Amino acid sequence: MSADVINLRARRSQPSLAPMLALTAAGMNSVNAVILDRMQSEIPLIPALAGHLISGGGKRMRPMLTVAAAELCGYLGTRHHKLAAAVEFIHTATLLHDDVVDGSDLRRGKAAANIVFGNPATVLVGDFLFSRSFELMVEDGSLKVLKILSSASRIIAEGEVDQLVASRKIETSEDHYLHIISAKTAALFAAATRIAAVVAELGEAQEQALDAFGRNLGIAFQLTDDAIDYDSDAQESGKDKGDDFREGKMTLPVILAYARGTPDERRFWEEAIAGFRTEDEDLATAVELINRHGCVEATRERARVYGQRAIAALAGFPAGEARNAMCEAVEFAIARRY
Amino acid sequence: MSADVINLRARRSQPSLAPMLALTAAGMNSVNAVILDRMQSEIPLIPALAGHLISGGGKRMRPMLTVAAAELCGYLGTRHHKLAAAVEFIHTATLLHDDVVDGSDLRRGKAAANIVFGNPATVLVGDFLFSRSFELMVEDGSLKVLKILSSASRIIAEGEVDQLVASRKIETSEDHYLHIISAKTAALFAAATRIAAVVAELGEAQEQALDAFGRNLGIAFQLTDDAIDYDSDAQESGKDKGDDFREGKMTLPVILAYARGTPDERRFWEEAIAGFRTEDEDLATAVELINRHGCVEATRERARVYGQRAIAALAGFPAGEARNAMCEAVEFAIARRY
Repeated sequence: MSADVINLRARRSQPSLAPMLALTAAGMNSVNAVILDRMQSEIPLIPALAGHLISGGGKRMRPMLTVAAAELCGYLGTRHHKLAAAVEFIHTATLLHDDVVDGSDLRRGKAAANIVFGNPATVLVGDFLFSRSFELMVEDGSLKVLKILSSASRIIAEGEVDQLVASRKIETSEDHYLHIISAKTAALFAAATRIAAVVAELGEAQEQALDAFGRNLGIAFQLTDDAIDYDSDAQESGKDKGDDFREGKMTLPVILAYARGTPDERRFWEEAIAGFRTEDEDLATAVELINRHGCVEATRERARVYGQRAIAALAGFPAGEARNAMCEAVEFAIARRY
Repeated sequence: MSADVINLRARRSQPSLAPMLALTAAGMNSVNAVILDRMQSEIPLIPALAGHLISGGGKRMRPMLTVAAAELCGYLGTRHHKLAAAVEFIHTATLLHDDVVDGSDLRRGKAAANIVFGNPATVLVGDFLFSRSFELMVEDGSLKVLKILSSASRIIAEGEVDQLVASRKIETSEDHYLHIISAKTAALFAAATRIAAVVAELGEAQEQALDAFGRNLGIAFQLTDDAIDYDSDAQESGKDKGDDFREGKMTLPVILAYARGTPDERRFWEEAIAGFRTEDEDLATAVELINRHGCVEATRERARVYGQRAIAALAGFPAGEARNAMCEAVEFAIARRY
């Protein structure tokens, strides 16, 4: 069955998100309506701050995956619209809290919410969106969905703390890094796709298949993000280039460059990750070393492996528009350069 | 029925928390076991940070109210232990986020978590506890409880944002202040007691009565807290005296002192709340003005009114040890000076 996919890959030099966008257009209109409606509050600062981020050009990838997975499951109802909005609210809450945690200046190409509205309001509006997401799930009424998403939220928080503890620690291993991104990123992707099988009442096997799809896509997505941060060919991203470097985050390109480095290079990395090399020229050195040792490409290669696993996880679902769109979205996610 | 209560008040010059502690001792042992068990994580920083606050001498008032209310409802099961722990986790999460929001130095008489562990970890462990609290509710499996507590959490966040917006605004009215404390404090008290009626399956009237009890107690409790912050007779509290003043928080003693002040005094308040009078001598002036106009006593008087409403809300429940203990706990809460 994955032959379709291999053909797909051979057929296109540039995978596109267009089939995914077409597949989910109508559903995402409904999801967006829920998002806009339920971020409202009698306290005007809440929709103002939430809207700053939510209207700020996010791709809404996670709710889009819920909508696509519901299509794949042949689900004809509308329950997933509210739940997809709940997924996006959890994601938005974690972004707001991340920006406070990282002291970010930019998010999605504009000033981060913490810069515009301050840390206090940003933390609290994150809490609002997080609570609102559970209110949406309660309205839906599925304890199974509540279990999946409350567990995912807890795992995200654990992953974020784990990442915080690992930052500035040059000894962080590739395994530890994979554990961190499985928690902080992939858990919500897995939950976003899994809940589609729950509302479609397809049973445990399909739930697990969609969980595996989302989880592997999430890992592939984060690996690609982390590669782009040091990719000398990549376009400008919406966040400050070199943020990961200056924060001493141990992402895979750094882990690999440190492992492959000469003694002098390793000393550079030890100083950089400890926070003693934060100038633009240090970032340029880091990019140069990472590219010299092929660590962007090696990170992308691992992303492709997880991407293929995501695609393989869909083998048991019927071939057709939904499966093709989801597979091409995986290809797109790992090939992107921004 | 409230004659018991009036007698109780006449009988004791110093109401005591002892009957409440005795009533809930066994239940709270079980709740504490759940709290300690479920704040664990494979990421050691999480229980370390959560434990710093949780083991830091909190009164666990909210879970204690759940346990007491379950006794009042004649509930013989154990479901409320997990749910009381969920309530405490929500409260702990909001305290952690509050300390980041307020930049607190002290909490419960020792260094606040944000000082010891930094803002990033403090925000994220708050998120962990918040998610964990929903996991506990999902394990219990009552959608009604999930609805009550997800709604309460959202209202708390709205109240906190509302308070943030109102801070440094001298024109904040008494009504607005009451609206803020109803949300940021009383909503969780109301939910904590209401869920006892849910697990006891007593029906809507008793749910509403316990909601009213908790809500009025919560308002009385916050009014008393806010009075103590400016009470020249009060003992040292666990937080920095004058924090509210320096943050420009518009609490009732300030609102009343401003309303009752001379033109010169009003100018002082305008400058102070705007953040231009933050010295120790300014705090001393604030305390002097508030006490000169009887605003601590006026705030306490309002607390007594809400306390009496809380007590009256229990009139439909059987007289006995549980009701007496809860009524005396209300008296205790509004009479305390620390």
